[in-house]
Amino acid sequence: MTPDDIAHARVKDSFMRQGMLRHLGVELLQARLGWVELRLPYSDLVTQQQGGFHGGAMGALADVAAGYAGLTVAPQGSEVATIEYKINFLAAFQGGHLHATGQVVRAGKRIIVTTAMVTHHAPDGPVRDCALMQQTLACVAKTY
Amino acid sequence: MTPDDIAHARVKDSFMRQGMLRHLGVELLQARLGWVELRLPYSDLVTQQQGGFHGGAMGALADVAAGYAGLTVAPQGSEVATIEYKINFLAAFQGGHLHATGQVVRAGKRIIVTTAMVTHHAPDGPVRDCALMQQTLACVAKTY
Amino acid sequence: MTPDDIAHARVKDSFMRQGMLRHLGVELLQARLGWVELRLPYSDLVTQQQGGFHGGAMGALADVAAGYAGLTVAPQGSEVATIEYKINFLAAFQGGHLHATGQVVRAGKRIIVTTAMVTHHAPDGPVRDCALMQQTLACVAKTY
Amino acid sequence: MTPDDIAHARVKDSFMRQGMLRHLGVELLQARLGWVELRLPYSDLVTQQQGGFHGGAMGALADVAAGYAGLTVAPQGSEVATIEYKINFLAAFQGGHLHATGQVVRAGKRIIVTTAMVTHHAPDGPVRDCALMQQTLACVAKTY
Repeated sequence: MTPDDIAHARVKDSFMRQGMLRHLGVELLQARLGWVELRLPYSDLVTQQQGGFHGGAMGALADVAAGYAGLTVAPQGSEVATIEYKINFLAAFQGGHLHATGQVVRAGKRIIVTTAMVTHHAPDGPVRDCALMQQTLACVAKTY
Repeated sequence: MTPDDIAHARVKDSFMRQGMLRHLGVELLQARLGWVELRLPYSDLVTQQQGGFHGGAMGALADVAAGYAGLTVAPQGSEVATIEYKINFLAAFQGGHLHATGQVVRAGKRIIVTTAMVTHHAPDGPVRDCALMQQTLACVAKTY
Repeated sequence: MTPDDIAHARVKDSFMRQGMLRHLGVELLQARLGWVELRLPYSDLVTQQQGGFHGGAMGALADVAAGYAGLTVAPQGSEVATIEYKINFLAAFQGGHLHATGQVVRAGKRIIVTTAMVTHHAPDGPVRDCALMQQTLACVAKTY
Repeated sequence: MTPDDIAHARVKDSFMRQGMLRHLGVELLQARLGWVELRLPYSDLVTQQQGGFHGGAMGALADVAAGYAGLTVAPQGSEVATIEYKINFLAAFQGGHLHATGQVVRAGKRIIVTTAMVTHHAPDGPVRDCALMQQTLACVAKTY
């Protein structure tokens, strides 16, 4: 297996255990070393009071995309826990789907720093920036 | 109606339109001027890969508690949009329920700054800090 | 020595080595377990383009107040390093002095979470909120 | 004048009024539409207790680089105020100089979102990531 194959296997293994995200409809598109892409289609499960994607859905999507990017560079046998993140919401959208790209900024032994960009893909094509996250992860012992 | 009654009515009106949160099981406990409390019971809908409450659920809960606290002090006829937030996850828990308290730090005409504390209530009583958020809201024209 | 005496001694020892802060005029007012207060008088050294206190000065003051609060609860022989912080600027002020209070939210073995509130004290008495910080610290081995 | 010339003139005009930053030794390297670069040489004015660059100096440098990037896209006649920022410190360095690049992520009429990357340039050549910031600016009326 290449490093990217290993990265993908680690992310997929964890993703299959995600109750909330899979329930909301999140799909894993790509996972390679330091880089993960997720997709979330629009549905009633992820809306706020005005019918747009809920900030909580964008936040969860970005958190997981960035966290999984971190997971791909964490030492073998460990996994990652989100210490904190900060997210800016750039615009509101409805319909279509969200696409989140998480990537690693710095991989330390104990602390990993990542970012995630969430874009909105309208049904008729246009892609626009939706949210930007900066996140801090801790490497922790895998317990399952 | 007292100012606290008005605050409660504004929050409840918006809460009833929340697709995602109500779907996840969030309940509105209290809303008064500058202060909102929400509750989220443990269920399969809000877990991560290790069976604990998902960070995305904590983030969404805190975001909405803090945002609604801001809504209670926003000018009449306007509502609030989350510009950004930052959240620290203090500990992981499963079972029981989460309790989020949002409060206003500073209410400007255009910008409102809030915080939210999420605590975990175990079935047998103990209450522990779970997550801490600092959030920035924009006052925007109400469109519904 | 009481725990608060020890806390004060640790903070003072570190404070005396702070080139930048002491140069800017920062004074240590109080340090006890989980709680530190600093003061920064207005001067040409800490202003921005409109004559108010510079955001960088508020940020540095809050960072150090919160970091020192964390230091008071870090294991003996270790010190703290700022992993990250987030700060909201609530209002701009000139003249008088800034007062920063740092306090510990959660003290883990490896990670400490803190907050700091910066207030402005006008020469004629009024005190107003100036900036709010939420910070993450790592406990690291002391190297001096 | 080209748009980049105008951007440079706006930033330089504001920079000349910066008491604190110029005092600390910050230099303006480049300013064009949506992009600003600053430089801060190592000196006793910008160190912490272990002799490295102070987090407060990195924070102020990144805040101003990102803020000036925002200024270049703010409506004419307005300037920008930092609502908030979040910064991760990636590594500690001493000697050489810091280089900060601020850039615009999203330019709204009222709110501008930016990022800044701070790198350290060692005297003998190596360049390494030092700090990463995500910032929110408000467009405000120019008052000087």
